[in-house]
Amino acid sequence: MRLRVTYHLACSRRVAAAKARDIAFEQTLELPEDAVSPEVAERVAGRVESVESLGRGRSRAVISFDPGAVCGDLPQLLNLLFGNISLKAGILIAGLDWPDELLAALRGPRLGIAGLRELTGARGRPLLCTALKPLGLTAPQLAQLAYGFARAGIDLIKDDHSLADQTTAPFRERVERCQEAVARANDATGGNALYFPNVTSGPVGMLERAGVARAAGCRGVVVNALPAGLGAVSAIAAATGLAIMSHPSLAGAFFQPAHGISPEVLLGDLFRVAGSDGVIYPNAGGRFTFSEATCAAINARLRGPLGPVSPSFPVPAGGIDAARVPHWIDRYGADTIFLIGGSLYAQADPTTAAERLVAAVRRHSHG
Amino acid sequence: MRLRVTYHLACSRRVAAAKARDIAFEQTLELPEDAVSPEVAERVAGRVESVESLGRGRSRAVISFDPGAVCGDLPQLLNLLFGNISLKAGILIAGLDWPDELLAALRGPRLGIAGLRELTGARGRPLLCTALKPLGLTAPQLAQLAYGFARAGIDLIKDDHSLADQTTAPFRERVERCQEAVARANDATGGNALYFPNVTSGPVGMLERAGVARAAGCRGVVVNALPAGLGAVSAIAAATGLAIMSHPSLAGAFFQPAHGISPEVLLGDLFRVAGSDGVIYPNAGGRFTFSEATCAAINARLRGPLGPVSPSFPVPAGGIDAARVPHWIDRYGADTIFLIGGSLYAQADPTTAAERLVAAVRRHSHG
Repeated sequence: MRLRVTYHLACSRRVAAAKARDIAFEQTLELPEDAVSPEVAERVAGRVESVESLGRGRSRAVISFDPGAVCGDLPQLLNLLFGNISLKAGILIAGLDWPDELLAALRGPRLGIAGLRELTGARGRPLLCTALKPLGLTAPQLAQLAYGFARAGIDLIKDDHSLADQTTAPFRERVERCQEAVARANDATGGNALYFPNVTSGPVGMLERAGVARAAGCRGVVVNALPAGLGAVSAIAAATGLAIMSHPSLAGAFFQPAHGISPEVLLGDLFRVAGSDGVIYPNAGGRFTFSEATCAAINARLRGPLGPVSPSFPVPAGGIDAARVPHWIDRYGADTIFLIGGSLYAQADPTTAAERLVAAVRRHSHG
Repeated sequence: MRLRVTYHLACSRRVAAAKARDIAFEQTLELPEDAVSPEVAERVAGRVESVESLGRGRSRAVISFDPGAVCGDLPQLLNLLFGNISLKAGILIAGLDWPDELLAALRGPRLGIAGLRELTGARGRPLLCTALKPLGLTAPQLAQLAYGFARAGIDLIKDDHSLADQTTAPFRERVERCQEAVARANDATGGNALYFPNVTSGPVGMLERAGVARAAGCRGVVVNALPAGLGAVSAIAAATGLAIMSHPSLAGAFFQPAHGISPEVLLGDLFRVAGSDGVIYPNAGGRFTFSEATCAAINARLRGPLGPVSPSFPVPAGGIDAARVPHWIDRYGADTIFLIGGSLYAQADPTTAAERLVAAVRRHSHG
């Protein structure tokens, strides 16, 4: 089977056939059809499987590619799907159909929903996550917050995705202090709260930081998957066995209505096959622009059947009001991690606000 | 000095002040202003330096950031500039003013224009580059092309950016054969043609491939900088000392008129400070959509003064007609690498076409 890519093209059916053929060559041979031997063209070029009108000057083309061109390599997958044609106009990737051979090579999440449930001991209810912030606090201040959130019963306590190795809270000191604080809280509560530091950095530094996190006792990390390169997700998982929560930093560049990669394909399919155990996205009704339909589509792509690839947790975020979490549980179901940050920090005492949130979610989930 | 970012906002001056303040907080504290202590806000939040109207419902805001937030880290730089706000709308990064402290930390190209001239021995004229393609040829076939191009006097012979580790031409075999072919041609001509393989892959594989390339005798490599993560460029340079030619795969996602990062900032400033010795971009008049003004702006950002950072070679590409190269030399000047691919392959014999091109450029450059 071939990798089938559904492109929405901002042109009429009449023009779309030629445009689809151009994409099929641009993304593989990178030569015009008449400069390539027919044998190589037949074997290597993308194949235009169908072209149809979507009305109002828009068309849909399905192009299939030899999965062997990907080499099981995430940067090359992005390059094949959208590398050169990103520099053209009016081309949107709206869907992907994966051959099992490619899914097996890419592998996907090592823990996924089942693995994160096992680590946290949270069953039959959504998980709650919050962020340590803001940038500018010291490592002891962040650790104190981490302790309070873990005591309150938050399942996952992650670094804000802008915490790197700033002098205010250097990476190693922050990780050791926050992890120790969460472990201490777990000792007091008998709980299994986890601390996920942000390890995003260049290729060498990132793997070093993930190693520091593991040595400190962390069971997972946060990665800004696009700034780091999507291959970072699987590389960290392979090197350390840590769970990966992927952050959508920069992803919005791809979400133009007529050009780019649709949110459910990028944050759903691609972040999942890259190996994310959870994928953070900006929930509808918060301070970003996703519709509820987009969020539902991301959830479906993260959790739905995908050959041998395990399901990943959707992590809606980006300004969810703590008081509205029961509403979102009803919409999204239990296999969701709710990341509530600012809404807790807007309260006089974020820890008390977290306790109220935990109680409300347990009440709502277990009736 | 602070890192000053010029944002173009798709809103009137009246709304722009609040939008700028929102960006300043979103990109740093990631909390609303009233949830942060005034001391932390003052120290950590971006500072809105100016807001002015650009007319027709557009505004310009300059926001400055503490360069310490970047930690000399390229993924964190991208995250600070555009991470979360990529998920909002109508925000374009149109300019950057760099503090020397940050430039020194990021370092930029190790070889740059002067270093690549030294490696190739090409002085007082533009360099010529071509690509080994298409995907689907075997390693011996690609090596035969490499030999012919090196014999013809092409300075830089690079892998097509889609060549990864496909079974048709596995990475190690391809690199060893192509490098050997170019060395053999150099022995025959007394020239200094260089072969740059594409090493783009995940963080671990990429550094391994760069090591294989160096061991084979290559002096530089090609990296798809955004799929790999911008930090890959500096990591490979630091680990191997190889020259880096960065390819703009995926970059077009950022080039929407009202939302993203302008081409001259992304491919000019950011690819340069990341350590690219040459930056490939789609030239005006080819099969992509850049205007001549955009190309000139990229050239200026790559070559202009930038504190302690060396100049990088602009590498216009993407469908340049070999016959038009003298025209582009007059437009762009000698400190340019012209990447001519398809136009050579469109001839019956690409090697003979390359010889004609080399002769034309030398005639044109030396009168």
